[in-house]
Amino acid sequence: MTADPFVAFAESLADAARPVAMRWFRTGIAVEDKADASPVTLADRAVERQLRQMIGERYPEHGILGEEQGGEGIDRDLVWVLDPIDGTRAFIAGVPMFGSLIALVRNGTPVVGVIEMPALGERFTGHAGHPTLADGKVCHTRDCGGLDHAILSATSPEMFSGASAEAFGRLARAVKHRRYGLDCYAFALVALGCIDLVMERDLQPYDYMALVPVIEGAGGVITDWQGKPLGLNSTGEVLAAATPALHRAALAMIGAA
Amino acid sequence: MTADPFVAFAESLADAARPVAMRWFRTGIAVEDKADASPVTLADRAVERQLRQMIGERYPEHGILGEEQGGEGIDRDLVWVLDPIDGTRAFIAGVPMFGSLIALVRNGTPVVGVIEMPALGERFTGHAGHPTLADGKVCHTRDCGGLDHAILSATSPEMFSGASAEAFGRLARAVKHRRYGLDCYAFALVALGCIDLVMERDLQPYDYMALVPVIEGAGGVITDWQGKPLGLNSTGEVLAAATPALHRAALAMIGAA
Repeated sequence: MTADPFVAFAESLADAARPVAMRWFRTGIAVEDKADASPVTLADRAVERQLRQMIGERYPEHGILGEEQGGEGIDRDLVWVLDPIDGTRAFIAGVPMFGSLIALVRNGTPVVGVIEMPALGERFTGHAGHPTLADGKVCHTRDCGGLDHAILSATSPEMFSGASAEAFGRLARAVKHRRYGLDCYAFALVALGCIDLVMERDLQPYDYMALVPVIEGAGGVITDWQGKPLGLNSTGEVLAAATPALHRAALAMIGAA
Repeated sequence: MTADPFVAFAESLADAARPVAMRWFRTGIAVEDKADASPVTLADRAVERQLRQMIGERYPEHGILGEEQGGEGIDRDLVWVLDPIDGTRAFIAGVPMFGSLIALVRNGTPVVGVIEMPALGERFTGHAGHPTLADGKVCHTRDCGGLDHAILSATSPEMFSGASAEAFGRLARAVKHRRYGLDCYAFALVALGCIDLVMERDLQPYDYMALVPVIEGAGGVITDWQGKPLGLNSTGEVLAAATPALHRAALAMIGAA
């Protein structure tokens, strides 16, 4: 356990998110358009409402950026960035691969990140400058030995088009295996030493800020597709790798025209 | 619980498979070529060895067909068909979406099927002529209302090529959402009323025989891509649907040239 009050508080937010998210999981309602009062929308809103209330009570001086209710005081030094249900389509399909993402961002840099997997009962906690914890135990990325031995994940090959499809295709052909459909859990599995690379696009700050301390504290590297650090104004293109060498190799592969 | 001795025995096989499979999950060994003594190969072999021993002791007069050790007496009236680890690549990547599949086939027709998910702690039990059980509770497919409301799953879009890629593409464009990377769990989620369609190819009898009683007992339909029942000599092309109407619509879509 950690003595850092921000980490402990982030974990208390994850504790609160879990049962609220699970209340709507597999409730079997066929209508699930996000604009509707679908199970996933209800879960999204209920989790975010709960977390915002807890933050407002404990740290009224902090800002909050959430997927559902937007930003509030996001120019403050410390901002909580929340994705109540990451992996909406997994949630809709009854697949337990959805997570709640909680980040604390200090002057644009994520310093605490929690990937909470409510249906799997797993939690990954990152804290800048400290080792990442998987269910309270230190975890590490692995060194698979090079691109040709790597396992690559992306939420779906269909999200890439045009130049990004070509870039993804090059990387996908260079690796050993590909896995799809994992959303934030793919990044957790990088931290756990199971998956080596994750390439995503069209992510929002609430999708990626929590991932940064988790990946970095486990020995991995996570940037945009140009190798730049992720911040609140990044492109939404994300590349995570288990080691600096693998990250350089993947960057070169997707950058090569 | 069931009084049928074959169903009870199939569940005892699933009980035995679970801890053996888990012994090698996430053991963090980077080398995982199937030809090697990799974690997944060790798990595959150990589970199958255990199940074959149990079957040999209890039903020495039955045949056995297993992924790892092949067939033995498969011309007998009753044959056990076993896939110790379905979802090998999920297993390798540390993803809990792998299962042990256990079927009892009578004169070519699967009459008992168990989808055991060791890392998720979930079990789906099918028994011809009886309702499918999910962790002991009756489960049903759902009626999503038509192809345009359906969630379609396939292990990967990359497994289709040429004409099959065109057929899958037509179906994928006709549905509402697509999910990848689920292997046998996609079929369990059809039975659970979460996913509506699964399209797969290159499956072996040990990959699909256990799925048949699970899908049918929950109200779904599972056949090859021509709508023919699955047997030990099927093509390995599999289409499962939550309802007969959805199955007809999907068959028409993939068959339309």
